[in-house]
Amino acid sequence: MSRERLQALRETLKQQGVQAFLVPRGDEYQNEYVPASDERLAWLTGFTGSAGMAAIAAEHAALFVDGRYTLQAQQQLRDQPIEQESLSMDAIADWLCEQLRPGDALGYDPRLHTELGLATLKKRLNERDINLRPLEDNPIDAIWRDKPAPPCGPARPHPLAFTGEHSADKRARIAAQLAERRADALWLPNPEVCAWLFNIRGTDVPHLPVALACGLLYRDGSATLYLAAEAVSEALLEHLDNDVSIVNDKSELFTAAQRHHVAKIWVDPQITNCWTLQQLRARDIELLQERDPVTRAKARKNPVELAGARAAHERDGAALCEFLAELPDAVAASAADTPFGELEAAGLLRAKREQREGFQDDSFDAISGYGPNGAIVHYRVSRESSLPLKPEGLYLIDSGGQYPDGTTDVTRTLALGDFPAHAREHFTRVLKGHIAIATLHFPKGTCGEQIDAFARKSLWDAGLDYAHGTGHGVGSFLSVHEGPQRIGKAASGVALEPGMILSNEPGFYLTGQYGIRIENLVFVKESDKHHGFLEFETLTLAPIDKRLIDTGLLNEAEKAWLNRYHRRVRETLLPLVNEKTQKWLHEATETI
Amino acid sequence: MSRERLQALRETLKQQGVQAFLVPRGDEYQNEYVPASDERLAWLTGFTGSAGMAAIAAEHAALFVDGRYTLQAQQQLRDQPIEQESLSMDAIADWLCEQLRPGDALGYDPRLHTELGLATLKKRLNERDINLRPLEDNPIDAIWRDKPAPPCGPARPHPLAFTGEHSADKRARIAAQLAERRADALWLPNPEVCAWLFNIRGTDVPHLPVALACGLLYRDGSATLYLAAEAVSEALLEHLDNDVSIVNDKSELFTAAQRHHVAKIWVDPQITNCWTLQQLRARDIELLQERDPVTRAKARKNPVELAGARAAHERDGAALCEFLAELPDAVAASAADTPFGELEAAGLLRAKREQREGFQDDSFDAISGYGPNGAIVHYRVSRESSLPLKPEGLYLIDSGGQYPDGTTDVTRTLALGDFPAHAREHFTRVLKGHIAIATLHFPKGTCGEQIDAFARKSLWDAGLDYAHGTGHGVGSFLSVHEGPQRIGKAASGVALEPGMILSNEPGFYLTGQYGIRIENLVFVKESDKHHGFLEFETLTLAPIDKRLIDTGLLNEAEKAWLNRYHRRVRETLLPLVNEKTQKWLHEATETI
Repeated sequence: MSRERLQALRETLKQQGVQAFLVPRGDEYQNEYVPASDERLAWLTGFTGSAGMAAIAAEHAALFVDGRYTLQAQQQLRDQPIEQESLSMDAIADWLCEQLRPGDALGYDPRLHTELGLATLKKRLNERDINLRPLEDNPIDAIWRDKPAPPCGPARPHPLAFTGEHSADKRARIAAQLAERRADALWLPNPEVCAWLFNIRGTDVPHLPVALACGLLYRDGSATLYLAAEAVSEALLEHLDNDVSIVNDKSELFTAAQRHHVAKIWVDPQITNCWTLQQLRARDIELLQERDPVTRAKARKNPVELAGARAAHERDGAALCEFLAELPDAVAASAADTPFGELEAAGLLRAKREQREGFQDDSFDAISGYGPNGAIVHYRVSRESSLPLKPEGLYLIDSGGQYPDGTTDVTRTLALGDFPAHAREHFTRVLKGHIAIATLHFPKGTCGEQIDAFARKSLWDAGLDYAHGTGHGVGSFLSVHEGPQRIGKAASGVALEPGMILSNEPGFYLTGQYGIRIENLVFVKESDKHHGFLEFETLTLAPIDKRLIDTGLLNEAEKAWLNRYHRRVRETLLPLVNEKTQKWLHEATETI
Repeated sequence: MSRERLQALRETLKQQGVQAFLVPRGDEYQNEYVPASDERLAWLTGFTGSAGMAAIAAEHAALFVDGRYTLQAQQQLRDQPIEQESLSMDAIADWLCEQLRPGDALGYDPRLHTELGLATLKKRLNERDINLRPLEDNPIDAIWRDKPAPPCGPARPHPLAFTGEHSADKRARIAAQLAERRADALWLPNPEVCAWLFNIRGTDVPHLPVALACGLLYRDGSATLYLAAEAVSEALLEHLDNDVSIVNDKSELFTAAQRHHVAKIWVDPQITNCWTLQQLRARDIELLQERDPVTRAKARKNPVELAGARAAHERDGAALCEFLAELPDAVAASAADTPFGELEAAGLLRAKREQREGFQDDSFDAISGYGPNGAIVHYRVSRESSLPLKPEGLYLIDSGGQYPDGTTDVTRTLALGDFPAHAREHFTRVLKGHIAIATLHFPKGTCGEQIDAFARKSLWDAGLDYAHGTGHGVGSFLSVHEGPQRIGKAASGVALEPGMILSNEPGFYLTGQYGIRIENLVFVKESDKHHGFLEFETLTLAPIDKRLIDTGLLNEAEKAWLNRYHRRVRETLLPLVNEKTQKWLHEATETI
């Protein structure tokens, strides 16, 4: 299938006078989850991972993916005339330098890239006298006949009971920062930023409860917001006060900026696309390129949001426990003609979540991986890939829910019966890493990259590691992957601050055998022991499989943490689950 | 004294038409240790620390220093009309924004700054319509009457027995990288880079065994080297092959570049001063701004250099042990009229080192701090500050030597008698951090900032920390502080690689009471346990004071490390020290 599409694309490129073209995963908002109308990478290559970039040249095509997606891409690219490479801008530059000659041009859609994202590539290609050329129209759109229409669902007010702060107050806070920087306006580059700032939510993107939007905040706290005409209801207009005017065409934002005499605008080059910067420059508006203050403010949850997160995690934990309690029977009842596989397991968990108050959607496509499929870090189960679950080996389930009071994300690894002996050591080392983060006290000012290795130390001691980050930021009824906070090897330069929600998810993967990951969400708070220090409080509530623990590898402090955690899980969830699960919960949380 | 000098400087600034001026510590090579003729900051302010920046405006003057020098600067600035601030370019910008008005100009000496170093300041001041103006002549030089002459000692060949690689081979290695980047030449910005690349050493700078030099390496491996005429001897010319031509005037380097048709030159903006970049741009030479490849190559010591480091550390350890063995008697013999103080202690240690083969110089001014002076992180003892040592409390001695086969740097903290009870807990926590680094196995690709927190964890557990890095790079008979390798909180982006030498020096400081630091040099090598992993091997040989250890806080693995280390110290040094020290060594290294 890719063969014909690549062929058609190459003809279009020829017509547009470029010798190669970049196809990223993101949409114009650099969303991780994109509307179906923006799934160009999947349409062209078949690869459905949440990150990646394809480069199409006259003779060859390549897909670049990171360590999370190496195995998945191998499976999805099978037999397609597309090479697979490791994702980095240098690797893409290397590949393009081989494909292109001096004087050639690389085409790109300026709405789908940031200038920062293209900087390395531009520098490397310019050295070879190869230019980057923005294309007015995306050449894939020209050949994608049955492309879905862009979404434009309603934008709904998100009530104060969940947000804890009026939009006008948020806008005043951010506007004060504009005044400090002597900027006349702030570019609001994406739906998440707008959702938080205006307290609105929507359903335009899978898993991300936002309406597609972007906008401008002025120094006086007033704003211009782009929303599709169909997204705007009476209720929304009532919710948004008079200081917010709505436009239904993105280009009107730029004329609004001129009408408001914006001479200098704050834009975050990390999350603002090239097209927007080009439009602003064309109007002689000076760019103040700094990190987006809304993204930063959004990351620090207020007490109402944290209370919501706790409440959402209780309901989510109850649903997960009912699933875990019923799983063994479902596996035992699995038969050749009615198999209970990875797909059915994910379905059962989804059904349990749907019974819980306020559930809106999975916060991402569940990773339901049995045995070798568990070793595919960001595996997404399909009818073809779904393995039947058997009463043996390891099963990894990573999933989450979107509730109006909070977003959840949890991974548990389970023994479905007997399992390879070394899995116990691997699981315990991952658990030790998880506990090291959960119990850490660290000074204010510490960044995620400075504590990441604590999660890996026990694996390093055995010469092992995992090829993904330890923690990502999580929104409040927003993206399950939000910045700027993170815990990982790469330098973020972002200090962890009270109120930030992050995942704590070390793992270990043995290709072809099993995957192990233990993930709880945590939030940062003042240390209750040391002045000037911070610590984490765990939000997620679900037992950690004791059958997989080698207690001989745990020290007393680690055992105490596990027992305390399990007691809290039991006491909190017992009143919320069915009778079968209550019995299971008692056993699953017994003291070790 | 500063009052008159500031007055004179302000008059000169007025004449040059600028409203303020920056006085950094570094010289035009951004050396940490600078020739006496470049000690402008000390001459103007009295502050003698190895890092800092002063800003002089019409009404006020301020000295900016980092956490290491807070106390020292307070003492040295006492009664001077100079404010003291915390060092960061943002803090300097804040201060200058208060002192200057729109339209004003900030003067700077372009030889003493890098463009990267000034970037933040430039951006912040330009926002206020304040410009940065490079001054042709340094206004301090105009008023510094008895300014010492610049040094121009001999440049000596450094033999293959110590370097392990011919200059021509080094140049060929680096030149290959130029070819890859299509650069015609590499700017060699400082004496260290030249010392390594050409295998020469000198005595122009205190503690740093280099001749002042800079130069150009061409793509064919040939080079033009600037050295003062007085530095060039027959022996040197014989040592440098025909591919290296020498010029005695820096500006001839730029004409040499033109003669060699250099159209594109590789410069490292981190270590190349503004003046050089201005000169290159004025000649229309394209700048390829990337990290200096020589600095990177220099950091990875070859087997000959590592063998030299081991040998130098044996002699240096023997000298240090003789000092430590004799110290108690010297303290006991101290009397009111002939006190044995911090200064005498540093002198005794220096005398012990001078007896050792090849000793050339201290690798930095020893930090000899008794009691409260030990809490001044980068304390430099003077006649006025020197406290007499008494048979009680804690004494910290941080020192090192320059030997032709290696550079050393070691800190020991000693109990001279009874000491405050909590010092034992603090010392043991510092030791636990030291051992955590010494015993760590980490995957290839790991950067220093990713492992820094292991050195702090035990302190963090008690709500404590230290305000300096954990490890700096160390040269091979070169600077005791070299990049790019380091272990610290700040992101370096530099992976630790086999052959790199670093310090391992966690500490803890109780202002007004005592300072604790335990420092060994280590080098990175392949892990002997795990494929794809690295570990450290300790070079420094000297007992760690057991009287200060709370063995109840150490786990079995930590005790085993200490006992193994002490056995190695004893077995290696026993044959090298005097009889008194042999007896002391036996006791000091007894099993715990």
